[in-house]
Amino acid sequence: MTTHASGHGTEDTVRALRWSDEGLLVLDQRALPDACDYRCYGTAAGVADAIATMQVRGAPAIGIAAAYGVVLAARSWFDADPRGWRASIEGDLEALARSRPTAVNLFWALDRMREAIAAVGTEGDPVPGLLARAQAIHDADVQANRTMGDLGAAVIAGATGVLTHCNTGSLATGGYGTALGVIRSAHRHGLGRVFATETRPWSQGARLTAWELLQDRIPATLIADSAAGLLMRRACVQWVIVGADRIAANGDTANKIGTYSLAILARQHGVRFMVVAPTSTIDWNCGAGDDILIEERDASEFLPQCYQTPDSTVGGWNPVFDVTPAALIDVIVTEKGVVQDPSTQGLSALV
Amino acid sequence: MTTHASGHGTEDTVRALRWSDEGLLVLDQRALPDACDYRCYGTAAGVADAIATMQVRGAPAIGIAAAYGVVLAARSWFDADPRGWRASIEGDLEALARSRPTAVNLFWALDRMREAIAAVGTEGDPVPGLLARAQAIHDADVQANRTMGDLGAAVIAGATGVLTHCNTGSLATGGYGTALGVIRSAHRHGLGRVFATETRPWSQGARLTAWELLQDRIPATLIADSAAGLLMRRACVQWVIVGADRIAANGDTANKIGTYSLAILARQHGVRFMVVAPTSTIDWNCGAGDDILIEERDASEFLPQCYQTPDSTVGGWNPVFDVTPAALIDVIVTEKGVVQDPSTQGLSALV
Repeated sequence: MTTHASGHGTEDTVRALRWSDEGLLVLDQRALPDACDYRCYGTAAGVADAIATMQVRGAPAIGIAAAYGVVLAARSWFDADPRGWRASIEGDLEALARSRPTAVNLFWALDRMREAIAAVGTEGDPVPGLLARAQAIHDADVQANRTMGDLGAAVIAGATGVLTHCNTGSLATGGYGTALGVIRSAHRHGLGRVFATETRPWSQGARLTAWELLQDRIPATLIADSAAGLLMRRACVQWVIVGADRIAANGDTANKIGTYSLAILARQHGVRFMVVAPTSTIDWNCGAGDDILIEERDASEFLPQCYQTPDSTVGGWNPVFDVTPAALIDVIVTEKGVVQDPSTQGLSALV
Repeated sequence: MTTHASGHGTEDTVRALRWSDEGLLVLDQRALPDACDYRCYGTAAGVADAIATMQVRGAPAIGIAAAYGVVLAARSWFDADPRGWRASIEGDLEALARSRPTAVNLFWALDRMREAIAAVGTEGDPVPGLLARAQAIHDADVQANRTMGDLGAAVIAGATGVLTHCNTGSLATGGYGTALGVIRSAHRHGLGRVFATETRPWSQGARLTAWELLQDRIPATLIADSAAGLLMRRACVQWVIVGADRIAANGDTANKIGTYSLAILARQHGVRFMVVAPTSTIDWNCGAGDDILIEERDASEFLPQCYQTPDSTVGGWNPVFDVTPAALIDVIVTEKGVVQDPSTQGLSALV
């Protein structure tokens, strides 16, 4: 199925996920920017596979997709066994939890759906109640992003150039975006140039962020990841603005591979560093970044085919996240407020 | 013409340039690693185009190619006008000089060929004398690389892991390589793991360095440029080893975009930083890195096609080099010796 993306306002026209009666429509981000194809998933296993294979990615979007996946699981099991669905659904919840290891929003969303499962009555169809809960998670994410956009834009007021990494926009969230939401809001208020890294090896910046900004006619300049140092040396940006996959209680932040390098470069050049993420990204059970599991994906995602022979002496190392210490982060923006110079104390004051 | 690469020793089997009676055989590096095709150029204009379009790249290899280009120019002009060739050749020398702006080896090699032009007699065919000079430049480069390999390997003795950037091997030089020559020599002495960056946007690391190491069965691990920070954080490497396109008199070094970022990351992590380049790379007329012209190539080299429309709001910035200050460089290895903590004084002591 190929369709044109449409959304809520000229500055936010893309949606990664759409609910329909047939199931969850997932924009296959592997095919962007060449094709804008939605795939329809009618089962939780399908949604888990869509997450694992990165048809949908981005910490908040993964959480929302998983929430809809729980709705699909409930529908299947209720249709098969109206009395026993609650026991049967557990395997699907576990499969969804296994789809990606790093983004804590996934586990947060599954916990919210477990609460919803507990709350629906033992009689009758659980789907309407669970769907309402998934849609509420989705809607709340967009609303949180708009709030963070305003809060973050106020913090960077006056910036003439910013650099962002990976994709943190409508494609990575319920809509509008986290770091890219701040950039959208700041763009409305006259922000100068937006630079986006390619974000190898998966090229989320080149394939997704640039595409999303093009849909909304927000000017952007793509750079190789390795050009960030020269960009800062030439004083082209005053802020680096990124999202997060998991924030430890002390503010250490796991995000797309390369974020840590950008934070070191920013500090060396007097460029400020902002993390934008909803509070569902904070893992209160994780005291510091060292405790965060870093996903390593198969090197075939970026290793040229000719090196993938059995007798090859060339391999690849493909960690997809790294951890930026809180000490290198100037500001964390959440939907509940802005934390300057983040620390356990600063973050816990949010909630 | 497709041929298998062959060379001088099992640890150095690739050649970017080969002279033949028909002209200069240039391994088209744009097609690697998928195809190993040599193109034959019979004119200086053809060689200049091969340099400009990056069929051959790497500072020393560009210089050697240009030297052979001068031989081809002399052959053409001497055939056309045995008495007037010396005046006519000037345009070809200028065209070769315009082919790439940053690598100083190009201008160094052209100066050597101008000396040879001045030295050949006014009577008779100048081609044998000029060819001998070009081949001497080529042979001396390989010899210099072997010397640097031994010097550099001694400096990093005991390292269990090194990281290199871009391609500095047989493909970038007359043979054996500069930074990759050190790695070849160190490999013979038991060096542990070799990590190579992809080196976006042109992917010299993924396409050329990994391929070249595969030909010689030297194990290597490819990483995304942006994974260098995490690699260092995990203490997987003790050295970053790179080449140079131009070294200012004070030791500031222009090299492939991203080198500067790696140098900052290395310093932050206690990883040492080595530049390996023949003395022909030193530009004594250039006092410091700020005076080095940084080539910016067309963004179409890495910008996805869909953004290259007239009404696109997405562009790209494609600087292909950056400058690493001498203060971030621990060692410069040349064929004339090793300079620790490089400075104008240290470099000038070499010559």
